[in-house]
Amino acid sequence: MSEANASATRITPGNALRPEDIALEVRTGLAKPSEDTAEYALRLGDDALILAQRLGHWISRAPELEEDIALGNIALDQLGHARSFLSYAGGAMVNDDGSAKSEDDLAYFRHEHEFRSVQLFEQPNGDFAATIARQFVVSYYQFLLYSRLTESKDATLAAIAAKAVKEVDYHRDHAAQWVLRLAGGTEESRKRMIHGLRIMWPYVEELFRDDDLTGRLAEAGIAVAPSSLKEDFDRLTGEVLTEAGLEVPDVPAAPGGGRQGRHSEHLGYILAEMQVLAREHPGASW
Amino acid sequence: MSEANASATRITPGNALRPEDIALEVRTGLAKPSEDTAEYALRLGDDALILAQRLGHWISRAPELEEDIALGNIALDQLGHARSFLSYAGGAMVNDDGSAKSEDDLAYFRHEHEFRSVQLFEQPNGDFAATIARQFVVSYYQFLLYSRLTESKDATLAAIAAKAVKEVDYHRDHAAQWVLRLAGGTEESRKRMIHGLRIMWPYVEELFRDDDLTGRLAEAGIAVAPSSLKEDFDRLTGEVLTEAGLEVPDVPAAPGGGRQGRHSEHLGYILAEMQVLAREHPGASW
Repeated sequence: MSEANASATRITPGNALRPEDIALEVRTGLAKPSEDTAEYALRLGDDALILAQRLGHWISRAPELEEDIALGNIALDQLGHARSFLSYAGGAMVNDDGSAKSEDDLAYFRHEHEFRSVQLFEQPNGDFAATIARQFVVSYYQFLLYSRLTESKDATLAAIAAKAVKEVDYHRDHAAQWVLRLAGGTEESRKRMIHGLRIMWPYVEELFRDDDLTGRLAEAGIAVAPSSLKEDFDRLTGEVLTEAGLEVPDVPAAPGGGRQGRHSEHLGYILAEMQVLAREHPGASW
Repeated sequence: MSEANASATRITPGNALRPEDIALEVRTGLAKPSEDTAEYALRLGDDALILAQRLGHWISRAPELEEDIALGNIALDQLGHARSFLSYAGGAMVNDDGSAKSEDDLAYFRHEHEFRSVQLFEQPNGDFAATIARQFVVSYYQFLLYSRLTESKDATLAAIAAKAVKEVDYHRDHAAQWVLRLAGGTEESRKRMIHGLRIMWPYVEELFRDDDLTGRLAEAGIAVAPSSLKEDFDRLTGEVLTEAGLEVPDVPAAPGGGRQGRHSEHLGYILAEMQVLAREHPGASW
């Protein structure tokens, strides 16, 4: 943990911490992540950013107007979390002119292999049940991760997590309710729910992989070791699946590698769409 | 005004009125729009619905993450307004089985010529400046309309407007700030802002056209005569344009006709995308 963070007084868990606050702390040097911490923040920020992009597509395309709004709100929550994590990560990364990288620098001006999101988050929306299956996994994972991260010795990460976990708790409930509803609906909806879980489940294993970075940071009390979340994840998702009369899909794990910049073929398309406007007009000032 | 509305006590301006509340009032007969009022609610609901669909596309595609969130929130606000207006409109429209039409029936199971939105709202996003130009016109129009509609003798319309006007007031400020920023930015941003206003302005005239329906309803104190908003619209938008050093575009009005179901070629594509999932799986139950 950096000295700056140890002495940061303004950022405390429970504070309503906006991305702008984090950017300010970073600019003024009050909060400065170590390189390791920045890399970790980048991972979590990229996860949320890519998911937001995927979910945003549902606005006006869900099967109900109410659900349009629910998925749209979840997308915006994720985008908010992404902004916070990326603003913080940028504090240890510099542009060519020596300035700290902003959230927008990181979102719009990195190449595909520089993104650190796990592959689950970039998987295509598929049909509504597939999106719900992805949400089911993602939101239980994020809920457990952020819950634990509120105790991080890095005050900024703890504060971001404390704000995010309340929102993700709702996402989790939303996804679980839909899993139950689709599994308990018609034969067709149940078939689709089962299929959705099968195509998303190969990407579950990657979420819980430890590596050198999380090892060092978990040791220092800053990060959460991904593997330490697996037992709770299996138990909590298992309870929902049992209630829905579904089984944990028996499918082999995908190779993964997103944390090291190895992505499925889908991320390139996402980035192309996401980055085109900012890249055509750097600085958004035309 | 129907008797049911005259005696409605729960729905009062200032109440936090959710679409679900309106649907309930309609189902229980506590609120029942006349056919005229339902048609009027349909117009305002369709405007908001189509705009939400257009704006939703900006999520993850705006030039800044902060702006992604702003436009996403505006889209969700509009979707909320659409749900309320359509829920109310459905109270005077029946399905083949005799049930009142729901917001989803109206959003997903009408044909293009049955949509009552004005053509401005379906115009393509274009570049960011074009979207801002459309927002500039739309949000001043809606702000003035909803401000006046809070005094409607129809309690439900007044309540929806009272809630919506607070949100649209923010949309108005957001659009005005961007008009000033783009007009006062670089030569390129100014050129694009001017171009954006020029391509949207032909659709302004249609917003303020009276017809038989608005004549009858304005006479009864239920609706606002569109033409009565024009002077304030010209004055308020004129103030912003003057501050931005811009002129009111000198362009001929488009033929319009959206209120009678005559739309530009764009609406068909919007509806195709919006309706495909619900139509493939009626009742969202698969």
